[in-house]
Amino acid sequence: MLSKNTVKFIKSLHQKKYRTETGKFFVEGEKSVLEVLESGFSIDMILMTESFEQKHFRKLTSFSGQKLILTQNQLEGLGQFQSNDSALAVVQMKPNQAFQPEEGEMILALDEVRDPGNLGTIIRIADWYGIKKLVFSPHTAEFYNPKVIQATMGSFTRVEFFYEDLGKVFSRWNLPVYGAFLGGDNIHSLEKITPGVILMGNESNGISADTAKYVNQKITIPAFGHAESLNVAIATAVICDNFKRLIGK
Amino acid sequence: MLSKNTVKFIKSLHQKKYRTETGKFFVEGEKSVLEVLESGFSIDMILMTESFEQKHFRKLTSFSGQKLILTQNQLEGLGQFQSNDSALAVVQMKPNQAFQPEEGEMILALDEVRDPGNLGTIIRIADWYGIKKLVFSPHTAEFYNPKVIQATMGSFTRVEFFYEDLGKVFSRWNLPVYGAFLGGDNIHSLEKITPGVILMGNESNGISADTAKYVNQKITIPAFGHAESLNVAIATAVICDNFKRLIGK
Repeated sequence: MLSKNTVKFIKSLHQKKYRTETGKFFVEGEKSVLEVLESGFSIDMILMTESFEQKHFRKLTSFSGQKLILTQNQLEGLGQFQSNDSALAVVQMKPNQAFQPEEGEMILALDEVRDPGNLGTIIRIADWYGIKKLVFSPHTAEFYNPKVIQATMGSFTRVEFFYEDLGKVFSRWNLPVYGAFLGGDNIHSLEKITPGVILMGNESNGISADTAKYVNQKITIPAFGHAESLNVAIATAVICDNFKRLIGK
Repeated sequence: MLSKNTVKFIKSLHQKKYRTETGKFFVEGEKSVLEVLESGFSIDMILMTESFEQKHFRKLTSFSGQKLILTQNQLEGLGQFQSNDSALAVVQMKPNQAFQPEEGEMILALDEVRDPGNLGTIIRIADWYGIKKLVFSPHTAEFYNPKVIQATMGSFTRVEFFYEDLGKVFSRWNLPVYGAFLGGDNIHSLEKITPGVILMGNESNGISADTAKYVNQKITIPAFGHAESLNVAIATAVICDNFKRLIGK
């Protein structure tokens, strides 16, 4: 049975404050809940409709946490989806732990990307292009925001990430940092790329002056028309596409 | 003075039904209103704050339509922006008239792209890549939807477009049609492109079977990771970027 306390607890996870306090977040919808079940995340609780349980009986056998069967109506009252006839999972955050890049690996760094939809879309793009590691400046949107999770379309389960001052990170790694600027080197003219870090900046202000000091090469998407700019997620996709074309793996 | 009838009229333009009936739409925000002032669109009326009028006095001298000075509060009650301290323009739609592609020109075709945000973003991308002509299947989102206009960031003033059954259009043009599919030719491996039509499909279902008959070459963005798909606006940007790189102008 769905207790008042459980309702209150899950609703509190809509707010960053309570996510941070409890170290939990929620994931909703059939695809995302199935992806998180098969990922390295620890799941505390799955709330699901009877039809979800029946359809995914086998995948649920390995799950030893709490299971609750709800009506669609009850489920929709908990998450942010207008319509949810499948499931919602309460999941444990991972510790904010720095990773070490492997040799030849491409990393994506975001400097103050604030919009949750942009962050989620960028994580999905990283996953498409086989970029498994991301690093975020401290004021980049929160990875566990439900809007971010939703926009990743399940890709949030397949990336590693941490938040830290980017200058510190780049000093430690000693890898080439490619920063997206207007007026840098045309990415269509690059002939070779040494794998390193692709750095994307804030929606309005681009890469901050402090972070820009660590950029080894400024890169630019060539414009052929008159639009002043591209959205940061669009620009990330185009740059990843060009880098992957040049690196070829 | 702002009359009740003007308020009612502008509010009616939030609905497609009344836009179609009257042949008018609205544009809001400083950047977009300035862009439409310098475009080929006919403007019926500009409603603006005093500060907008003072700041852009010179640009407004060539405008002979109706001008109304409003408070920010009044302005915000008319459009869809939460905050608007500049202007809103009532603009005449252009006739739905087919264009003829010029030799060597790239055209973008959309088959049932339904989301206004995606359509607007795609128009901005087309403008970035110097693609000036777009053709839309009849059920693609409406160009004059305020969400589309907003997402174009002013680029709606720099493209030509019309709505028509794509099969009919492609039969008439006799140009190569490059359709975005999963499992087509890898766009990183293409060595040459004859300019023609880039065709993008619906968010969920891709290119319809009827339209697919007219595709001369299926093309695909290579995947390096595990995301199942890319958003249609992201995919459009990556494909335009590769085509422009190959065509080089």
